[in-house]
Amino acid sequence: MIELGWGRVFPALREAAGDAWTAYVDHPFVRGLGDGTLPAQAFRRYLTQDYVFLVHFARAWAMAVVKADSPDEMRLAASTVHALLDEEMALHVRTCAGWGIDEAALHTTPEAPANLAYTRFVIDAGVSGDLLDLLVALAPCVFGYGEIGRRLAAAPAAANPYQEWIETYGGDEYQQACERVGRLLDSVASRRVGVELSASPRWSSLRRTFTTACELEAAFWSMGLQGG
Amino acid sequence: MIELGWGRVFPALREAAGDAWTAYVDHPFVRGLGDGTLPAQAFRRYLTQDYVFLVHFARAWAMAVVKADSPDEMRLAASTVHALLDEEMALHVRTCAGWGIDEAALHTTPEAPANLAYTRFVIDAGVSGDLLDLLVALAPCVFGYGEIGRRLAAAPAAANPYQEWIETYGGDEYQQACERVGRLLDSVASRRVGVELSASPRWSSLRRTFTTACELEAAFWSMGLQGG
Amino acid sequence: MIELGWGRVFPALREAAGDAWTAYVDHPFVRGLGDGTLPAQAFRRYLTQDYVFLVHFARAWAMAVVKADSPDEMRLAASTVHALLDEEMALHVRTCAGWGIDEAALHTTPEAPANLAYTRFVIDAGVSGDLLDLLVALAPCVFGYGEIGRRLAAAPAAANPYQEWIETYGGDEYQQACERVGRLLDSVASRRVGVELSASPRWSSLRRTFTTACELEAAFWSMGLQGG
Amino acid sequence: MIELGWGRVFPALREAAGDAWTAYVDHPFVRGLGDGTLPAQAFRRYLTQDYVFLVHFARAWAMAVVKADSPDEMRLAASTVHALLDEEMALHVRTCAGWGIDEAALHTTPEAPANLAYTRFVIDAGVSGDLLDLLVALAPCVFGYGEIGRRLAAAPAAANPYQEWIETYGGDEYQQACERVGRLLDSVASRRVGVELSASPRWSSLRRTFTTACELEAAFWSMGLQGG
Repeated sequence: MIELGWGRVFPALREAAGDAWTAYVDHPFVRGLGDGTLPAQAFRRYLTQDYVFLVHFARAWAMAVVKADSPDEMRLAASTVHALLDEEMALHVRTCAGWGIDEAALHTTPEAPANLAYTRFVIDAGVSGDLLDLLVALAPCVFGYGEIGRRLAAAPAAANPYQEWIETYGGDEYQQACERVGRLLDSVASRRVGVELSASPRWSSLRRTFTTACELEAAFWSMGLQGG
Repeated sequence: MIELGWGRVFPALREAAGDAWTAYVDHPFVRGLGDGTLPAQAFRRYLTQDYVFLVHFARAWAMAVVKADSPDEMRLAASTVHALLDEEMALHVRTCAGWGIDEAALHTTPEAPANLAYTRFVIDAGVSGDLLDLLVALAPCVFGYGEIGRRLAAAPAAANPYQEWIETYGGDEYQQACERVGRLLDSVASRRVGVELSASPRWSSLRRTFTTACELEAAFWSMGLQGG
Repeated sequence: MIELGWGRVFPALREAAGDAWTAYVDHPFVRGLGDGTLPAQAFRRYLTQDYVFLVHFARAWAMAVVKADSPDEMRLAASTVHALLDEEMALHVRTCAGWGIDEAALHTTPEAPANLAYTRFVIDAGVSGDLLDLLVALAPCVFGYGEIGRRLAAAPAAANPYQEWIETYGGDEYQQACERVGRLLDSVASRRVGVELSASPRWSSLRRTFTTACELEAAFWSMGLQGG
Repeated sequence: MIELGWGRVFPALREAAGDAWTAYVDHPFVRGLGDGTLPAQAFRRYLTQDYVFLVHFARAWAMAVVKADSPDEMRLAASTVHALLDEEMALHVRTCAGWGIDEAALHTTPEAPANLAYTRFVIDAGVSGDLLDLLVALAPCVFGYGEIGRRLAAAPAAANPYQEWIETYGGDEYQQACERVGRLLDSVASRRVGVELSASPRWSSLRRTFTTACELEAAFWSMGLQGG
């Protein structure tokens, strides 16, 4: 695996998740994106569910604004809500159109259980815990897409139908968003736990939250591959 | 299907759910409980997950106390929290012991995705909506077990290893709990919507919540049968 | 009182609040703003507390994003979060500087009980209820400032030291924000109750929420006048 | 002040609150309870508001069940919900009847701002933070009444009309409830922070929450004395 960055807390959680992280970021769906062999039908299924995902993911980031402790933290979380609602969703609608899925279909698509499971798990991490618990549940999505995008962008396949997806997440804008979220996560961890995160009594619970979120992300890819 | 009772709102939601209700209360897992053919391994898998389910289900009922509007509503919801934490969980531990699952295993069992999906969906119904949205998401579990218990208890199989389970949910105590929850649901619906529920603009959203919860309950049975 | 607009629901709530509305929008503090006789010390006390208010008010609007039901509702609520965090708070810091209050003082100022009471009441309206309950608790602040700004801007006093405040809330940008929030409130009320709001069983509870919020706003002005 | 007990965390918070603690537990209202000189009208005003307080305090404790991390923590929090709803509120109704306040008046009494401010502050501590933040906001009420009850019970005045109130909070049942909450608070603090609470980066925030809650409790007594 490539060197990561994105702060101090994420790499520690990533390492602690071990195989659950690898099973997520190196999932067969992801390999199919990378070499262009992913069936179009699987990508369409993923895209359609991902639109519903973005709605609830934006809700979870809005919950981070509610739970933030300072105007600066609030602004960082709110800028992610804004990016999701006003940029990523519009990009999504355009991408879907390019793959033959019209916007009306996006709004009426039934939410797959694997989709629902992840976003509601994240939201409940915020209900039951504090901002750190919530951000740790959000982290696999944010950073996993960043890592996948960067890795696939570094080794482009010829005439890959998924090149645009790869460039979105491997591109500067998304990579900078990962930087910002990395700083927010580090800052909140410092404020809520201190610098020695893995020595804290919260470490085992935070690891478990992160690992479960990785598993739910991997199940999201599997849903794309297999349906259901 | 047999005549139900349990108030005014539940039967309307049940009818509106149509096949999703039947797929839940007449699931192959349920038939196997009824005629005693359910593999013991499937029942053990269900029991173990159901313990974790009860924890989060009690949290969802505690959220109903937070969202209640009067001391009487609060008491009704709190009595369910109490029944879950102090009676149903203890009963569960004893039942599990009888099936060779010790309590330590219950506390360390990883939560299956199908389990997590349902409870977190319910909790998010309370986060995003009001008490009525929350109760409608809770309803399929409460009333479905009541309906299944009553139906299976009325047609006992000889020497059924699952007879105790059937008697728990078909028995007076649980049936009376259904009565109480039915009254609470009706009362909250009257206060938040009025008597003409199905003419309300909320009806389609309430139906969708109830139906999704039925589907997630059916997926819980499938998880018991097939694992995963 | 002047003719209002801003949709359908707000005028009904405003009328139902009766004297509580008038006591808020025609408070001695407001009259002092209008004719320039408000003591500078009272305005400084108000400004300092209002900064802390904006932080929690933005949190309450972020909760509206969490509780929204569609991407469009989410965007409307998120645009208010953005306006509060990125525009109104910065404007506030500049205004405070002009009145001799530096930014560091804003960040360390203890929150007055009258300030805390209002914002936490609003947040709890969202915890206990749905998006409509939350918006109705937010409404007196949004629309009250809009009505006050418009009225005072229409009858300017000579050399009023508070002219900038009046122009902010009486100006086009804020008035258009009132329009947007009015549309959001109407849309959510239609979806959650229907068109006949005052015939709904929720009407008395919504009235009470709105009226209490008016009283808490009036207490905020009084805190500015008298301290405490 | 007398020696306290009730665990490890509460005494540290109490000491850190300094004068804010003393201003609460040695408030003129409390002295008037102790020597019997409190005007009956002030006590009646307090009792009436305290009923509304109990409703929202029970909601806050139900939120603690939602945010708890284990069945044991959930049971401890739920037993407090039960005690408030099923015992303390009934006792309250009887006490009120003895002072000439009938139950209907309790249900329709408008919530005083000082009352609302405290309970909604507590609920928001749970919304914005984790279970520890919530319990620290609840702590001044639980332990303050325990300390006041114990102190006043140890020095009884002759023919004190408030003797029953004193015996309620100074009595074994309430004192044991303080023990239980003390254990819960210590256990949650150990799990979420570790043993060195005052060395944690959360300490200043927890102190501030506790101190603000003490100030809001003192304001509640003042509301009893002066109305408003």
